[in-house]
Parts: sequence; structure tokens; C-alpha cells
Amino acid sequence: MRLPSRTRVGVVGAGPAGLLLAALLRRAGVDCVVLESRERSYVERRQRAGVLEQSTVDALRGCGAAERLDREGLAHDGIELRWNRRAQRIDFPSLTGGRRVWVYAQTEVVKDLIAHDLTAGVPLAFGTPALAVTGADTDRPVVTYRHEGREQSLACDYVVGCDGFHGVVRTAVPASARTTYERRYPYSWLGVLADVPPSCDELIYAHSPRGFALHSLRSPTVSRLYLQVANGTDPADWSDERIWDELDARFAVEGDWRLRRGPLTQKSVLPMRGSVTEPMRHGSVFLAGDAAHIVPPTGAKGLNLAAGDVIELGRAFALRYADGTDRALAAYSDTRLRRIWRAQHFSYSLTTMLHTDPGDPDPGFGVRLQLARLDRIAASRAARAELAENYVGPATR
Amino acid sequence: MRLPSRTRVGVVGAGPAGLLLAALLRRAGVDCVVLESRERSYVERRQRAGVLEQSTVDALRGCGAAERLDREGLAHDGIELRWNRRAQRIDFPSLTGGRRVWVYAQTEVVKDLIAHDLTAGVPLAFGTPALAVTGADTDRPVVTYRHEGREQSLACDYVVGCDGFHGVVRTAVPASARTTYERRYPYSWLGVLADVPPSCDELIYAHSPRGFALHSLRSPTVSRLYLQVANGTDPADWSDERIWDELDARFAVEGDWRLRRGPLTQKSVLPMRGSVTEPMRHGSVFLAGDAAHIVPPTGAKGLNLAAGDVIELGRAFALRYADGTDRALAAYSDTRLRRIWRAQHFSYSLTTMLHTDPGDPDPGFGVRLQLARLDRIAASRAARAELAENYVGPATR
Repeated sequence: MRLPSRTRVGVVGAGPAGLLLAALLRRAGVDCVVLESRERSYVERRQRAGVLEQSTVDALRGCGAAERLDREGLAHDGIELRWNRRAQRIDFPSLTGGRRVWVYAQTEVVKDLIAHDLTAGVPLAFGTPALAVTGADTDRPVVTYRHEGREQSLACDYVVGCDGFHGVVRTAVPASARTTYERRYPYSWLGVLADVPPSCDELIYAHSPRGFALHSLRSPTVSRLYLQVANGTDPADWSDERIWDELDARFAVEGDWRLRRGPLTQKSVLPMRGSVTEPMRHGSVFLAGDAAHIVPPTGAKGLNLAAGDVIELGRAFALRYADGTDRALAAYSDTRLRRIWRAQHFSYSLTTMLHTDPGDPDPGFGVRLQLARLDRIAASRAARAELAENYVGPATR
Repeated sequence: MRLPSRTRVGVVGAGPAGLLLAALLRRAGVDCVVLESRERSYVERRQRAGVLEQSTVDALRGCGAAERLDREGLAHDGIELRWNRRAQRIDFPSLTGGRRVWVYAQTEVVKDLIAHDLTAGVPLAFGTPALAVTGADTDRPVVTYRHEGREQSLACDYVVGCDGFHGVVRTAVPASARTTYERRYPYSWLGVLADVPPSCDELIYAHSPRGFALHSLRSPTVSRLYLQVANGTDPADWSDERIWDELDARFAVEGDWRLRRGPLTQKSVLPMRGSVTEPMRHGSVFLAGDAAHIVPPTGAKGLNLAAGDVIELGRAFALRYADGTDRALAAYSDTRLRRIWRAQHFSYSLTTMLHTDPGDPDPGFGVRLQLARLDRIAASRAARAELAENYVGPATR
């Protein structure tokens, strides 16, 4: 594959942020090139989140990349909270003026966008690691990359880093010009995929004295389940039976509800952390998605924040090439950071309400504060609305 | 003063909880005796909170102890939040279906109740320390006390400990039969009284990178102001000028708003902690107010929780002596603990939203989470309603 040596927007990383940005730019008639270090097969297999906000779905539809999502995605009108053997459903439409979310795995979004972008003729190169970004302070930044064994360079008007926290673009911004704020949570998630229909149509977020558990799903035949575990946990220490028993204990509720069991096809441990790099623009270089921010997975915000970043960037680049001004691009960092800190706080708030804190000097006090919050959510419409509005995300602009 | 040797309800402590309980019992025709270790002049001078919920006001009115409160108390329909040089008013009536709070100092409530109880003929003895409570597991508990130099005893049907966290009643419950949960906050408040009209009609809760500040008032001519300070702070290290300058810096807002300055008549440092002792009943002994729970002062819940406890107890004792059953008394601990943990969580939530945390390993992250919460409150009616409903407290039963 022969890549151009010059483009308007150089996109580093072909995760959902980079792929959606390319689709949005294509639609707006703005040339771009997408460079991805990994091979396509690897990118299409990465297990990540699975809850899409309305604005994410609308953006995929707007690009014409939502055909399969519209066929296979599952509209979810609520989630269930469990604590103290009781359950409380949070009904999204009645609490948020009709909003809802979609369950459709990030891996499927990625497959759909890759197919879409390649069909649309976007220069999208896999197995092509970006090595460096230079000239962030100039109006002609350059991405150096390795493609088919040779080092080459791409001259751009702008470079967008969609290459994650450890990618090269974030570090191309001089250290003196950026600050990264971080919070490490004192626990991790053990996530499993199970070849069994989900035990409930909706997600279940369970507080338990044994730790948090989450019941989710990837499709009508595949369950996705998570358990809070200690940092440093080795998935090999968790047999299938131990996982199912622990899930049953944490989801326990009045009545005889039980999880459907089935073969586990994947086990992995996810650390829980929050991080934000500010600002999200330096000169002609922009950061989007995980390159700029990480949220703990509890609120399912990671993918939606990444999509929100590139929706904003796509709009701003379209304006830039329509009227020649930098106005919308100049506002990008501030606009997105407000939204990102909102989501960061929501993720923090949901995480700390549901996880037991191994470092709490008086865990009995901490657990009772959590139960008081959960009881309040059951008792108060205002508290439920506050949770639901944050969960479904902002209305599409 | 000659005290009876036998009563139905022995009340230890003549703070607001004990005094209000005596008034409620008197009205219900249930005999009681109130023992207070301190002298009346001391009790009437103790500076404490100053915000009364509707249910507290209603109880005082129901006893006929609200004449001066109705004349001098100030109805407050809102509070103001400040952060990042901006201000947001929280309007209680429009967010809570018409509820509000009253500003009337706890010292005044205490004076009114003492006068009321003495006039009503309640045996109320100052300078009379309770020394021990025995027989909690029997139906004839006994309070031993020292009165006018002699050790004496009071045989009761029930004993209610309104004598604070360090009082004798809490420790009369066997250690194996109670658990105390605690949270110490890593900061304190420096509180001052100033002989100057308040600079604003309403309370102002200010978040600042320099720490929290609260503008409150005791009356139309007396301001009450608080600054977050490090634990272990000596008030002598804070000159009047330093206090005013620091308050000005923390309340800074767009425009040229300034605090009115005046002579400071009192300075003291208050630790910030939460604690709950469970259960609140053991046999024939009950705990109420600070004897059972402490909340940080941020949400102004301490006095109102104490009042709520004795309102519930007064009702339960009235039923006990009307129909001979223990039903309402048996429910007391569970009923109140639900309310107390709700208030404990609200106080925690407001406290951690507004105070800088000296132990945060990445304070930049923590401060941004706080600002995101405050921005959300400004942006969302659901978030404002959740705050307002908690602040004004539950509707009167």
C-alpha cells in the first residue's frame, strides 16, 4: 500500500476514535491518513466496552457506519442496581426525557468502522507504527512512521493522537506544555466472556460486602461479567467454578434468582484508573480518546468520551476547511475538558459507591455510607434522575 | 432542689436533645427527670449550630417553646455556593415543593427550652453529673448521680442518654453490644463570631484552592464565619486581620463583593468527624443526639438529627404509656439509623465536595472532580434538587 506523503489531518491510531474521526472527515471532504501500529486482526479482536450513548450512535449513523448496529444493537432503557439483597431499576426514558443507551460491543464498532473507512477510500494503514511527531509548534507537523519495513514521513496541517495513553502523540507535546492528572483506584476488575445468554436483559451493578460485580452482555448469546478483585490479581488463580460462585454470591437478591452458567471463553484483569491530560491541544497537535483521558470502566464512558472528542474535532476541522478560521479548533480543548471532567466525576462517583475500599481504616463506616447512597437512590426521584442523566450522557448537539 | 428517686424516663444531659425530649414527654404526660453535669450558665453559652429544619421547628412549636424562635428566627429559602469566582444559588422552595430552613442559634434554642421546661415543672437539675447507669438489661435501670455534694440514685423504666459522645450512658451499654463506626476528616474548622451584620442574607458555602469557607450568621447583627484549617491548628496563630484576609480570598467572586469586617468576639477550632454507634437501644437504655452520632458540621445536621431522635422517642414513649406496648420503642433504633446514615452521607458528600484534601496524592485530580460536581450542580436541576432535598431535611411526619 502506497501512502501519501502529505495530508491535511494525520490521524495516529485506528481504535474507535481514529476510525470515527476518519469517517467524519471523509464525509466533510477533509483529507486524512490513518496510521495504526497493530495489525487489523489484532485491532478487531480487542475486547473493550459495550455501551453506546445516543450521541455516539447518532455519529455512527451520520457517517453511514451504523447499518449492523441498527440491526444487532440492543436498545437499553435502564439498568438495575443491587445491594443488601434488594434491587432497584433505574428507568432511563422516564428520568431523562426519553433518552436511552445501546449495547453493542466496541469490537463490533471497530469492525464496522474499518470496513466503512476502507470502502470510503480512507488511506488506513495497519502494521504501521508512528515513531515520532515533530513540529507541533509549527503549522506543518510531521509524523514519522515505519511502513512495510521503511521509515517514511507524513507532512500534515494537523496531527490528531488517537493512539492511547502510551502512544507517541501525547509525548510529542513538550512535557512543560501539558499536565497529566491521575487517580489510581485500589482495586481491579476480573472480566470474563461467557458463551451463555445473559441472565437478565439489562446491566446489573451489584454492591456486596464481598465487592462489586457487574452483569453485562455482548449479544443475546454472550454474557460479559465482571468481579472486583485486588490489584495484582492473576486471572489464573480464578477457576471457572470460583468465578461463577463468587458472581452468584455478589448478585444475591431476595428470591431465587441465579446466573445462567456457561463456558468462559476469556478472562482478563483490568486496572481501574482515571487520568486526564490538559490541555488537549498543543499547536497543531490534538489529543483524543485514551491519548487524553482514561476513565474507570464503571460508567461505560471511555468509548463515548472518545467518540465525543472526535465528533467535536470533525466538526471543527470541517469549519476550518470551510471558512479558513481556527475558531472551533481553538475551543476544542476547553469544550471537551468540561465534558471529560463531568464523566470523570460520574465514573468516580459510581465506582466509589459500588466497590469496597481495601484501604478504608473503618470499612464499616464506608460501607454504610455506600448503602445510604443506594437507599437514597431507591427513595428519591431526584437522586435517580441525577444518576440516569449522567449514565445516558448529554443529549446530541 | 430535691429530686425524685423514681421516674419513668431518666434523661441524662440537658443539651437540645434532652431538653426537647423532656418538653415532649411533659406534653404527653410522661414523667421524666433531667440530669445535667454542667451549670445552667455554661449550657446556655455553648456555641453550636444555627440551622433548623422544618421538623425541628414544628416540634418546638408543638411544645409551645417556639415563641421567640417565631419572632427572631430567620426563614432561609436558599444557600449560595461559590467556586472558581462564580456563584450559584440553591433555591429550596422551588426545588423541594416549598420547604425551607430557619436560622436560629442552638444556644437560643437551649435557653428557650430550659425556660420552657422549668416553667412546665420538669425536674431539671444542673451541676448534677450522672456517674453511672446500671441495669440496662433489666426493666429497672438506675442512674447514679451526684447532686448538691451527695451521691444519689434515680430508678427509671427507661434511661435516655442525651449526654454526648463522651457521656456515661453510651458506655453503660456493654461494649460487646454496640459498635461505633468512625470517620475522621483530615481538616478542621476555625470558627469565629463577629459583631457585624452578615455580608449576605443567606449562607455561603465556598470552595477555593485555599480551602473551604462558610459565611453564616447568628442574628441580623452577628456574623458567624468558618475557615478550613489544618488539624491541630491553634486559634492563637490566627490574628483577626489574617482571618479576614483569608475569608476575603476564599469568598472571592466576579465583581467587587467584600465581607463586612467587625470585631471578632470568639475564635475556636472544631474537629471534623463522623461517628455512629449502633444500635441506638440496648434493653431499657436509649441513645439520642451526639451520644449516638456525630456528623461534621458542613450540612448543619447535628442539631436536627438530635431533634429527630427525641421526636421519635417522645412519640414512642407516649405510645408506650398509652397502650403499654413496646412496638414503637422497638423500632426506634432502625428507624433513626436509616435517617442518620442518610444525613451522615449527605454531610460527607458536601464536606468532600468543598474541602481541599491535604492527603490527596494528586490534588489536581481531586480539585477537578470537585469543580466538575459544582459545575454539574449549576447545570442540572436534578443535581440541585438532590442537594436541596438533603439540605432542608425530610418533610415533617
